[in-house]
Amino acid sequence: MIAKTPNPPYYAVIFTNTKIEEDKGYSKMAQKMVELASKEDGFLGIESARDSIGISVSYWKDLESIANWKKNIEHLEAQKLGRELWYKSYKTRIAKVERDYEF
Amino acid sequence: MIAKTPNPPYYAVIFTNTKIEEDKGYSKMAQKMVELASKEDGFLGIESARDSIGISVSYWKDLESIANWKKNIEHLEAQKLGRELWYKSYKTRIAKVERDYEF
Repeated sequence: MIAKTPNPPYYAVIFTNTKIEEDKGYSKMAQKMVELASKEDGFLGIESARDSIGISVSYWKDLESIANWKKNIEHLEAQKLGRELWYKSYKTRIAKVERDYEF
Repeated sequence: MIAKTPNPPYYAVIFTNTKIEEDKGYSKMAQKMVELASKEDGFLGIESARDSIGISVSYWKDLESIANWKKNIEHLEAQKLGRELWYKSYKTRIAKVERDYEF
């Protein structure tokens, strides 16, 4: 689903990754993290797709809401498992959305 | 492939879309657009993934390079075909990458 975000400005966290082939609990955790993130103050939406790489873009009201989500205790545990178990590589980019247009 | 971008700041164009099921020339055009974009001044890289939605994030040096690419004549034709033929919906967001970290 394309996220229904408000008018800019707002923030995007672009998380790109390559993953091991086995699931090892990843899918369940990924779903849980989407549910948890959705309850955070300042969460505006998320878009995800995966084929040879995975891209998840989550949208946030401001940098404070991103910082709060980053240090959520269950999210910290998921990040640790991601580094140790699921991801072969990843890159996270924090970006301020200045303009958008749709169709 | 995760794009090897320089240190921030730089810009991201987050293009999220839903597509018709038939190809109708889309794959060939998509590949051609990646090749063309790669030759543009200020192009820094691109990441794409598709399952139920497609997400392509292209990275650019500045807003000027994004504006130049948007009005590239072959890209304009592709955008027109996208609106008329391939995409059921899409959203484009222009965002300034302020920070990144990797693993």
